[in-house]
Amino acid sequence: ADAAAMTRAQARQAQLTKPPGALGALEALSIRLAGVFGTERPHPRGVAVLVAAGDHGVAAQGVSAFPPEVTPAMVANFLADTPYGPGGAAVNALARSVGARVYVMDAGVNAELPAHPALHRAAVRRGTRDLSREAAMTPQETAALILAGAALARRAIEGGADLLIPGEMGIGNTTPAAAISARLLGLDPAAVTGRGTGVDDERLAHKVAVIRTALARTPATDPLTVLAELGGFEIAAMLGMMLQAAALRRVVVLDGFVEGSAALVGVALAPALRDYLFPAGQCAEVGHAAQLAHLGLTPLFGLDLRLGEGTGGVLAAPLLLGAAATLREMRTFEEAAVPGG
Amino acid sequence: ADAAAMTRAQARQAQLTKPPGALGALEALSIRLAGVFGTERPHPRGVAVLVAAGDHGVAAQGVSAFPPEVTPAMVANFLADTPYGPGGAAVNALARSVGARVYVMDAGVNAELPAHPALHRAAVRRGTRDLSREAAMTPQETAALILAGAALARRAIEGGADLLIPGEMGIGNTTPAAAISARLLGLDPAAVTGRGTGVDDERLAHKVAVIRTALARTPATDPLTVLAELGGFEIAAMLGMMLQAAALRRVVVLDGFVEGSAALVGVALAPALRDYLFPAGQCAEVGHAAQLAHLGLTPLFGLDLRLGEGTGGVLAAPLLLGAAATLREMRTFEEAAVPGG
Repeated sequence: ADAAAMTRAQARQAQLTKPPGALGALEALSIRLAGVFGTERPHPRGVAVLVAAGDHGVAAQGVSAFPPEVTPAMVANFLADTPYGPGGAAVNALARSVGARVYVMDAGVNAELPAHPALHRAAVRRGTRDLSREAAMTPQETAALILAGAALARRAIEGGADLLIPGEMGIGNTTPAAAISARLLGLDPAAVTGRGTGVDDERLAHKVAVIRTALARTPATDPLTVLAELGGFEIAAMLGMMLQAAALRRVVVLDGFVEGSAALVGVALAPALRDYLFPAGQCAEVGHAAQLAHLGLTPLFGLDLRLGEGTGGVLAAPLLLGAAATLREMRTFEEAAVPGG
Repeated sequence: ADAAAMTRAQARQAQLTKPPGALGALEALSIRLAGVFGTERPHPRGVAVLVAAGDHGVAAQGVSAFPPEVTPAMVANFLADTPYGPGGAAVNALARSVGARVYVMDAGVNAELPAHPALHRAAVRRGTRDLSREAAMTPQETAALILAGAALARRAIEGGADLLIPGEMGIGNTTPAAAISARLLGLDPAAVTGRGTGVDDERLAHKVAVIRTALARTPATDPLTVLAELGGFEIAAMLGMMLQAAALRRVVVLDGFVEGSAALVGVALAPALRDYLFPAGQCAEVGHAAQLAHLGLTPLFGLDLRLGEGTGGVLAAPLLLGAAATLREMRTFEEAAVPGG
C-alpha cells in the first residue's frame, strides 16, 4: 500500500468537519483505502463478487449436512433467469440490491454443467480427491486454479471493479478450510472446525476426526503444499483472485471462513496481500475469528452470517464505499468555515 | 405491522435456497420489513435522510466540546455547493455514496440562516431555553416542531422514500437527549450521559450535574411534557418524522442516541411505532444501548460512530435493502430444484 498517501489521508481525515474520531471505524478504513488506491481522495467505483464453485472428495465422508448434488444445483441457481434478473441465490439478490456484478466460475464441480454464457469454466477435475486419504489436488491442478482465479479477477477489474469479493460455493468446503486454517495457524482442528451448513454434534465430531486424519497424513507446512494437500479448487481460485486484485491495487473484500482460508495461504505467500484485505462481517463459523486475529483485521459487523457465496462481502461493500466517500468528499473545517476545527 | 404478511414471510424465508438461518440477522430483519410493507416480497426503494438542526439554551452552561456557532456553520455545510454535489458534511458524502436523498431542516437554529432553496424552515424560536432553569420548549412550540417533522417526512415519502432516516445536528443536544432518556427509562443521569462531541471528564461531570438539576426542576413523566420540558426542537421534529413515517407504513431507520431519545418519546406515545423502527449501529454514546434494550431492538453493527447527522442510518440502509432483496428475490428450494430443502 502507498504509505505516503496514507499519511496524507491521515492528515486530511483529522481536518474533516466532524469531531475527531466521530466516524469511528470508518476513519481507519478510509485511510487503508487511501493506501490501496494511492490517493487521499480514494474513489472506488465498481463492485464485483466472484463466486467459485467446487466439489470435494471428502464430502463422501459425510462431513456436510447437505448432499454434494447441491453444488451444481446452486451453480444453476446463480445463473438462472428470474423475474428480478440473473440468479436466484442470496448473492444474486444482494448484488442486485447494491449494484454489484456477479461472476460465476466452475472451479471443479462434480457434474456436467449445462453450457451458459455467464459461466466461467475453469475446472480441471470434477471435484477434489478426499483429503483424508490423499492429496486433494496435484500441484499442477492447484496452479491451474490459482491462475484461473487471477484471470477472472483481471476480467472483473477490466469490467470496472475496484472492490473484488471472492466468494464460494461447494458442499463440504468448510472441511478443507478448517484443515488449512488448523495447519497454518498451528491450532487444534477442534478450535477451527464449525458446523458449516449445519451439521449436528455427532457429525461435527466426525468432521474434526476426518480433519485430524488429513493433517496426520501430510506434514506439509509451506503454504502452496498445504493448499494442494488439503484442497479445494475454489479455495485455490479465490487465492488467485486475491493475489491478482492486490497486484493491481484493488480492494479484496474478505467474506467468510472459506475465503479466510484462502487469505491465510495468500498472506503466508505474500505478506503484503494483507494491506489489500478488508474483512466483511464476523461470520458465525467458529474459526473465522482466529483467522481474522492472525491477519490483524477487525470485522465490520456481526449479523451471524454463515452462508458463503460472498454474501457478507456484498453487504460490506457499501460500508467501504461510504468510508472512502467521507474521506474524498467531506469538506475540512477551514473549507467550510466551521469553528472549532 | 401486518402480521399476516409476516407469517407468509416467515414461511417463505424457510424455503429459500440456503441453509436455515444462514443469513443470520438478515432473516428476522426481512420478516420485519415484510410486516412494514404488508407483503412477503417487500420492495423498499428510496432512502431519505432528514437532518433537523437546532440550538440549545443549555449550551451556555458549557456542556459541549464545541461552541454553538458550529450549528449554523454545519447547516451551511449540509447545503454547500461542492465539486461532488450538494453538501460537504459526512452525511452528504455517505448519502451520495448509497444514493440517499438529504433533506435539511432548520428546526430552531440560533442564527439568521441565509436563504437556500433546499433549506426547510421550521424554526419557531432561535434555540431552546435552558432546560436546567425552565421548560426548554412550550407545548405550542413542541407541537409545531412535531408537525413540521411530520410534514417533511410526508414530503420525503412523496419524493419516493420508503426508508426514512431522521438525523440531527445541534451543539449541546446530547444533554436534552440524556435528560429525556434518564426520565423515560427511569435511570440515573450518569448512566445515560456521554461525551457527545468529546467532552473531558470534568465537563462530563458538569453535564451530568446540569441534567440532574433539570430533572429535579420538573416532575413530568408523560412523554410530551417530558419532551417540552427537556427539549429540543430537532428532537421534536424527529419525533414527528417517526410518527408520520410509521403512519404511512414506511421504515424508520433509527440512528444514534439523540434519535433514540425521540424514539423513546414516540414509543411511549404510540407503542406500535416500535414495529417501524429499525436500528442502525450501536453508537459509541453511552446510553444508546439502554435505549435499544428498552425498545427491544438489536443494532446492525458496531463501528463506534458518534457523529449524528443520521450518518449511521445511511450506512445501515443498504443492509436493510439487502435483507428485503433476499426475501423478495431469492428462489425457493422447489423453484430452483435444489436438493435438501
